Amino acid sequence: MDSVLDDLIADLPNGTVVTDPDIVASYRQDRAADPNAGTAMAVVRPRRTEEVQAVMRWATAHGLPVVPRGAGTGLSGGATALDGGIVLTTERMRDITVDPVTRTAVTQPGLFNAEVKKAVAEYGLWYPPDPSSFEICSIGGNIATNAGGLCCVKYGVTTDYVLGLQVVLADGTAVRLGGPRLKDVAGLSLTKLFVGSEGSLGIITEVTLKLLPTQHRGCTVVASFADVQAAADAVVTITGKIRPSMLEFMDAVAINAVEDKLKMGLDRKAAAMMVASSDDRGPAGSEDAAFMAQVFTDAGATEVFSTSDPDEGEAFVAARRFAIPAVEAKGSLLLEDVGVPLPALADLVSGVEKIAEQHALMISVIAHAGDGNTHPLIVFDSSDHAEADRAQTAFGEIMDLAVGLGGTITGEHGVGRLKRPWLESYLGPEAMELNHRIKKALDPDNILNPGAAI
Amino acid sequence: MDSVLDDLIADLPNGTVVTDPDIVASYRQDRAADPNAGTAMAVVRPRRTEEVQAVMRWATAHGLPVVPRGAGTGLSGGATALDGGIVLTTERMRDITVDPVTRTAVTQPGLFNAEVKKAVAEYGLWYPPDPSSFEICSIGGNIATNAGGLCCVKYGVTTDYVLGLQVVLADGTAVRLGGPRLKDVAGLSLTKLFVGSEGSLGIITEVTLKLLPTQHRGCTVVASFADVQAAADAVVTITGKIRPSMLEFMDAVAINAVEDKLKMGLDRKAAAMMVASSDDRGPAGSEDAAFMAQVFTDAGATEVFSTSDPDEGEAFVAARRFAIPAVEAKGSLLLEDVGVPLPALADLVSGVEKIAEQHALMISVIAHAGDGNTHPLIVFDSSDHAEADRAQTAFGEIMDLAVGLGGTITGEHGVGRLKRPWLESYLGPEAMELNHRIKKALDPDNILNPGAAI
Repeated sequence: MDSVLDDLIADLPNGTVVTDPDIVASYRQDRAADPNAGTAMAVVRPRRTEEVQAVMRWATAHGLPVVPRGAGTGLSGGATALDGGIVLTTERMRDITVDPVTRTAVTQPGLFNAEVKKAVAEYGLWYPPDPSSFEICSIGGNIATNAGGLCCVKYGVTTDYVLGLQVVLADGTAVRLGGPRLKDVAGLSLTKLFVGSEGSLGIITEVTLKLLPTQHRGCTVVASFADVQAAADAVVTITGKIRPSMLEFMDAVAINAVEDKLKMGLDRKAAAMMVASSDDRGPAGSEDAAFMAQVFTDAGATEVFSTSDPDEGEAFVAARRFAIPAVEAKGSLLLEDVGVPLPALADLVSGVEKIAEQHALMISVIAHAGDGNTHPLIVFDSSDHAEADRAQTAFGEIMDLAVGLGGTITGEHGVGRLKRPWLESYLGPEAMELNHRIKKALDPDNILNPGAAI
Repeated sequence: MDSVLDDLIADLPNGTVVTDPDIVASYRQDRAADPNAGTAMAVVRPRRTEEVQAVMRWATAHGLPVVPRGAGTGLSGGATALDGGIVLTTERMRDITVDPVTRTAVTQPGLFNAEVKKAVAEYGLWYPPDPSSFEICSIGGNIATNAGGLCCVKYGVTTDYVLGLQVVLADGTAVRLGGPRLKDVAGLSLTKLFVGSEGSLGIITEVTLKLLPTQHRGCTVVASFADVQAAADAVVTITGKIRPSMLEFMDAVAINAVEDKLKMGLDRKAAAMMVASSDDRGPAGSEDAAFMAQVFTDAGATEVFSTSDPDEGEAFVAARRFAIPAVEAKGSLLLEDVGVPLPALADLVSGVEKIAEQHALMISVIAHAGDGNTHPLIVFDSSDHAEADRAQTAFGEIMDLAVGLGGTITGEHGVGRLKRPWLESYLGPEAMELNHRIKKALDPDNILNPGAAI
């Protein structure tokens, strides 16, 4: 195989192609820790679009699979390495230019979401999408998965902020789609097609983002509930009347896991906790905050706390963000991402409880409740093969449960490799066939992230 | 040809296939009045998805072109009839179901935008997109063109509200894409691909719309300017700091045309008038309204008027909406739809002025200024062939001007047939080729609206 790689090495700047076995091994898996991950023959670290083009021309010439990778924080195995292929990481593509007058930023894919936020904040601007992993996930990966986050309930998901892309196709052609125009309907909506395509249609090498003026200050309301249904009812009431900028749910397991670590006085006996924010009506959203507090109280909350102090509010948001690492401290995690229509939220939670009991597993549910997007966190001991198998079974059963409730197998993490076995039955044969037609039209040799996404 | 149609007539309920020459003639053109329109052999008016499937199976079997048509209000000739083909109108597909708990509506494509707004308003819900033609354009046509409108500057365009579609493909297959889930990233973003595809990829037979709670009451600010640059500067300042819910521009021609009809005391000597609204900070957006009034004043506005009275505010919005019919009263119209990055707004207006002078035409510019989306209205006497030709020339020159300023040939109306000659040079050969690959994958025989959109 060495001669094959030699062609590529000769075409790229020194140090771009890495074959050191330890480094290559460290790129085998993303955060999904796919147990079936292979080992690439090399990790390629381009800095420029032209280098990505060279990689894809080479891959097409040799018929070799290319797995694109952002920061490796994906939770569905979208960046799982394949034996005999290469991993193309965008980690060294880190340029960004902000244009405050058009409120856009042009960025390479390798910057972290938090770095994009910081770069644009210097101009009084805001890039809203905020996946929980925003400090460590890349903007390119966000676009490849159409990532969501906490503020999506009001501000939308990644695709809503992507005005333009430069993508490199399987054959090495570079294509510009869209650009710094706020509205543009010339030609098919190809920019939107590439968002969420998980590296299966092309490699994103440049992104034009739409930015908003800095978010207004908001108020935060925290409420504890003795039962999940009451909290879920409050979610439906609130979203039917106002537009909260955050509406997050934690179950008893998550509350206790966070309290174990942060000791901030959360109600350990509560079945559910809601963390809600508004930056809308009233000074700093206070009118909305009062409304939400009232809805929580009317729904039977055991405790309701409101604050207009940004630091105090941020402490509760941080507690919610900390739920994943806190639960992860209890074992290995399989992180689910199912979405259901809002009225099915409580049924999803109680269904997950039953699955946990059945398989003698700890499963915590946290949720972007305002979007119906839940993250059941399946805890297991990875050294206990039987338990790991039961976790895998539960992972699938939770998807079946969600689909049975009118929901989706993935709300914001993507299909990757882990969820692919469930995709066709969820989409149906006609939609699946349509996915394949598009894939085939753009990547006829199936070298772009084969086996992932679709 | 009669025997060909007989097959179709036999397959569909009585009255679905119309061959009356007068009726067929009335479906030759949409509002773009394409001078090259053909005459269909029949107009087909299905009520159900299954009937649309029968039409497409028949069209595929006979290799005949199908032009999908909503309410016929398109401005780019996307529903121009073709000789020897059929026009498939969705005007009798008018069912809607609203689910207030999930804040979604499932609607057939034939309802007018205003009818959708009204149906959901009964549940305290709001469907934001508001093209100027909202009282007479269909929701299916809105989706086919990814229509915009006045409130897009804050609330986004049609695609942002489409959660799911049922589409019938060229071969008659019906496919469900997406559905009533607020976040769903399973499979490629095919729902978004069909939005804006102008009937070239499939026929939309059902739509699942995302709805918002009823919009908050807002304030409106109206300002007159002695020069366009000052108004354009104010647009950049405002959108960099706050999120207005409307930020509309009218030039001197439009102001005078409206004043001729409505006699509401607009400043006939002004070079530009801005109509701005906010439903955001302060009671009824009053803090934002005060900010906008100050920006207008600082930019040199000759007159600034603010109101928190919804009726008074609505009168100015109505004046802006009335600009198109008011200018149309002066002759036939070619309605442009070019978009530019915000800082180029004044250059676009002055460039259009030059083009008007050069060709001895009246051209009025109105704009969704906050989005950089402008509508130069080219007035001409359709009985004067030389003038009609000059209007056509100006139509093309305005697109060239916009593209030269970093803009697009169409912001919200679509490419249709009228703008197709400009599409490839705007998109570039690589993106154009990608459009063709997708089209070919989905409509290999090119029977869906051939010659339009791409």
